[in-house]
Amino acid sequence: MRFPAQGKVPLGYPAAMKTAALVIIGNEILSGQTQDRNGPFLARRLGELGVRVAELRAVRDDEPAIVAAINELRASCDYVLATGGIGPTHDDITAAAIAKAFGVAHAVHPKARALLAAKYGADLNAARLRMATVPTGAELIDNPISTAPGFVIGNVYVFAGVPEIMQAMFESARHRIAGGPPVRSRTVLATATEGVFADQLAAVQAQHRDVEIGSYPSFGRAKVETRIVMRSTDAARIDAAAAAVENMFRALAVPAVSEPGSAP
Amino acid sequence: MRFPAQGKVPLGYPAAMKTAALVIIGNEILSGQTQDRNGPFLARRLGELGVRVAELRAVRDDEPAIVAAINELRASCDYVLATGGIGPTHDDITAAAIAKAFGVAHAVHPKARALLAAKYGADLNAARLRMATVPTGAELIDNPISTAPGFVIGNVYVFAGVPEIMQAMFESARHRIAGGPPVRSRTVLATATEGVFADQLAAVQAQHRDVEIGSYPSFGRAKVETRIVMRSTDAARIDAAAAAVENMFRALAVPAVSEPGSAP
Repeated sequence: MRFPAQGKVPLGYPAAMKTAALVIIGNEILSGQTQDRNGPFLARRLGELGVRVAELRAVRDDEPAIVAAINELRASCDYVLATGGIGPTHDDITAAAIAKAFGVAHAVHPKARALLAAKYGADLNAARLRMATVPTGAELIDNPISTAPGFVIGNVYVFAGVPEIMQAMFESARHRIAGGPPVRSRTVLATATEGVFADQLAAVQAQHRDVEIGSYPSFGRAKVETRIVMRSTDAARIDAAAAAVENMFRALAVPAVSEPGSAP
Repeated sequence: MRFPAQGKVPLGYPAAMKTAALVIIGNEILSGQTQDRNGPFLARRLGELGVRVAELRAVRDDEPAIVAAINELRASCDYVLATGGIGPTHDDITAAAIAKAFGVAHAVHPKARALLAAKYGADLNAARLRMATVPTGAELIDNPISTAPGFVIGNVYVFAGVPEIMQAMFESARHRIAGGPPVRSRTVLATATEGVFADQLAAVQAQHRDVEIGSYPSFGRAKVETRIVMRSTDAARIDAAAAAVENMFRALAVPAVSEPGSAP
């Protein structure tokens, strides 16, 4: 058996490609009650912007946990995108935790207060004013859905946890994210278990080191299927790898088709 | 505005409760191509076993990333449950990475080889033999679906990434996980935005510090709804907190009902 030597796993991405980490904040994720939709959305959008997602962490509404994750990841990645915990209730502690991570105070932002005052008028109570509170030095991120803004400080972007609001905030902020050529992908769907072709696929990967080739089996249907997914920022190299994969399956007499809509 | 002081966020869990971290391994998660189903499943099952999930990390099929996550989390949590990367293809590097994290070699396990030999016979090729390879000193975890085993070493449990197989492996291994009283929850569904009741809910939380109370708004429907979720290992304390939440909404004239099936 052969394991790839450390650091030799082909990635298919330029060495200089920007990286991002995602921090999903909220007890509801770690109880299994809520399926996180923000991580997959941000991962796909960042890929389109040419940014590689290096890691995702889901942490509790717990200040030390948030501080530790933010500080570790903002040092190791170009961008950190965090979601959740910026509402008006007692369990919304993200603004205070991010302030602590940066070693700054947190206070009501005048522009955020004005936005909320315009929306709520006399109903702008203490709880709602929490939504105007950001770390000192943070800039606001526009929220076209429900007004209360997100914020950015340093390389850390903080969005709401409600998916529809988070997505709108991301589109407000994405002009700040400098990426590169988009990540493209293509999928070949084969009717076989991995053990039938794994050795040959390793050889294809070795010959196409500038394309990341992943193999994803699925079970529980009438037939066993495996998806071979090729990713790279270079469409021509994906085409070359996909042709090699299709040739490989032909040689093995394994039925395989390019998945509809998967061409880059 | 008031933010909870650090370390004073009520948790609703016994101080001695066992903790777990989840490590989801695979490029397909961080590209946004595949929605992780393993994290939510493990989180729910661990709650039923009385184990609190402290953190979830999704990392790439990259040896240094896997080693770093495993070593950080096995030191800080009672259990680490990892999924993905134990198949026969070149991108399955989890066994080698876990071995590296523990500073041990990895080799074919005789019992795992025998299981695969019985299944595949003459078709037990080099690629399939990778699935019998585990860190030295690891014990096997039974796989009743597709034979190739998971493994446990120290406090780290390694399962397949395919959800159906992962779930079966978890049930094979769960007798090894010593938890405590199960985490129970109850949900009150209110027709109001959080800003209407956030101050009052903070007071309820302050009076029920042994129950974790979370507030989760949803948008995009005809009416604005917020779910108040109470969690604790103590059913009587959840009932008391739920009664306080229902009284609170009554006093505010906010329509609210216990969500069907949510009683502990």
